[in-house]
Amino acid sequence: MYYIGIDLGGTNVAAGMVDEGGKLLGKASIPCPRGSEAIADAIAQAARLAGEAAGLEPAGARSVGLASPGVIDPEKGIVLHAFNLGLDNVPLADMLSQRLSLPAVLENDANAAALGEFVSGAGMGHKSLVAVTLGTGVGSGAVLEGKLYTGFNYAGMESGHTVIHRGGRECTCGRKGCWEAYASATGLIRSTREAMERNVDSALWRLVPTLEEVNGKTPFDAAQAGDAVAQAVLDEYVEDLACGLANLINILQPEVLCIGGGICKQGDNLLKPLRAALDREEFTRDNPRRTKVCVAQLGNDAGIIGGALVPMYR
Amino acid sequence: MYYIGIDLGGTNVAAGMVDEGGKLLGKASIPCPRGSEAIADAIAQAARLAGEAAGLEPAGARSVGLASPGVIDPEKGIVLHAFNLGLDNVPLADMLSQRLSLPAVLENDANAAALGEFVSGAGMGHKSLVAVTLGTGVGSGAVLEGKLYTGFNYAGMESGHTVIHRGGRECTCGRKGCWEAYASATGLIRSTREAMERNVDSALWRLVPTLEEVNGKTPFDAAQAGDAVAQAVLDEYVEDLACGLANLINILQPEVLCIGGGICKQGDNLLKPLRAALDREEFTRDNPRRTKVCVAQLGNDAGIIGGALVPMYR
Repeated sequence: MYYIGIDLGGTNVAAGMVDEGGKLLGKASIPCPRGSEAIADAIAQAARLAGEAAGLEPAGARSVGLASPGVIDPEKGIVLHAFNLGLDNVPLADMLSQRLSLPAVLENDANAAALGEFVSGAGMGHKSLVAVTLGTGVGSGAVLEGKLYTGFNYAGMESGHTVIHRGGRECTCGRKGCWEAYASATGLIRSTREAMERNVDSALWRLVPTLEEVNGKTPFDAAQAGDAVAQAVLDEYVEDLACGLANLINILQPEVLCIGGGICKQGDNLLKPLRAALDREEFTRDNPRRTKVCVAQLGNDAGIIGGALVPMYR
Repeated sequence: MYYIGIDLGGTNVAAGMVDEGGKLLGKASIPCPRGSEAIADAIAQAARLAGEAAGLEPAGARSVGLASPGVIDPEKGIVLHAFNLGLDNVPLADMLSQRLSLPAVLENDANAAALGEFVSGAGMGHKSLVAVTLGTGVGSGAVLEGKLYTGFNYAGMESGHTVIHRGGRECTCGRKGCWEAYASATGLIRSTREAMERNVDSALWRLVPTLEEVNGKTPFDAAQAGDAVAQAVLDEYVEDLACGLANLINILQPEVLCIGGGICKQGDNLLKPLRAALDREEFTRDNPRRTKVCVAQLGNDAGIIGGALVPMYR
């Protein structure tokens, strides 16, 4: 028994054949075109290529599950808005179902990634998991009591848009002080640039001669080279990251909370101070049973695997 | 079929006979003594009096469910710590079970209250509810997908201890800037006192000649009488309250979110500005399906009713 999973991204469409245990049997990725018909065609083509990679017929799959960015209606299988793909009110599940002659379901990409990690990544063998991805924004998804949790209107788990500094930085969502505005890679880059503007003597300027060149790795590199300004940026970043994670833990107390995104490549440079902050911030810091905080394991495959398994975990 | 529910408080022990639909058939309340044996005796006595009030034999109940303050272990039926009752590591479920010859279960009081509201209060007919109580602290509980949600270690839904002003007011939990430190009645009283100290001309001083006399009603009374200082305190209070509620909604998207506690007696004085703030702060403000925000309906009976029904909703 196998399932097709699709991870629809702004740059690429990735597809995979996945077994019921979440094992990726073969995958393929092609550039994502623009226009809803072209996107649906590309998804079907990626699925065929993934079938070839796995040596399996797409038509033999139980279903196709699509992890989509943006706001979706999973009941109707419609992408309501996905700005970075230019999709607006597109019945992508039906369009895929026609092209592949399979039942098709649609899920938010952060939720699908959480499901992937739950089944065959950081959450394997556990009953609940929250997955947080630190990228352009802060995405998150949850599997609670063995089921994908999305809230009654499928719009839940927008933990990036919970305020930790009321009245603080403007967020893309319209609130001020959202966790995402501080804990995303974008937030870290912004903090680094602001620190550089305030500190013209910082070694950060020798690493990146212009503010435009700052990326999520820059402050880590500068701090490792001994720059106090970069270290102060990171100290604040870890406090902000820990603040939102502790908030989530204090509410949901999942068995596992995994964090993903490029910043997690820093490994212990990030995790050690992060865990120290959580030891101070969690309501359950003295409880023998605490949420296990770790790095996500599946990388870009999480969306494919989770997308494929959505029909089993709704 | 009926169940015994107990709400254990610092001042009184309240007991009730409850049917499977959450209807309170009869109740009784007696002062809460000190000492674990005396407390267990008082609970059994309250249960007998509730039976008399309902015209039902306690021995005929299916079970007894106890809503307890403090930190509990529901698996073992132990109250680990309940500081205001002086209980420490007390196997209260077993002690009750012996006294009443019935199966006994233990639940956190905020969780039990949420369950009560879900079954026969603000959540009636809905599939999910979050209940938030604004009192000495900010308590909260959730029923998700028709089941009491407590996290894998039963310590979840401590939404009062989520930070909204990082680095802000010291909270009893050890964090700085928790929602509870601002949105509880205690937080409102503190804000009112601080404003009075800064504004010796405020009409607040005519309402309450000393800071000790300030209560949760004081700023509402002063604002209604036209005092700008009190109004500013309330404006900030509503922003803090809405901030934490929007955070919870953005994460959980429950069908219903009810708020309770003495402050809610202010009715529209509180709810109107609160809803206006939520219309700005919710991620789903433009979604046709939004969380219904309302006032809790059961008052002090929520813990009795929810406690009684815990065995059905775990």
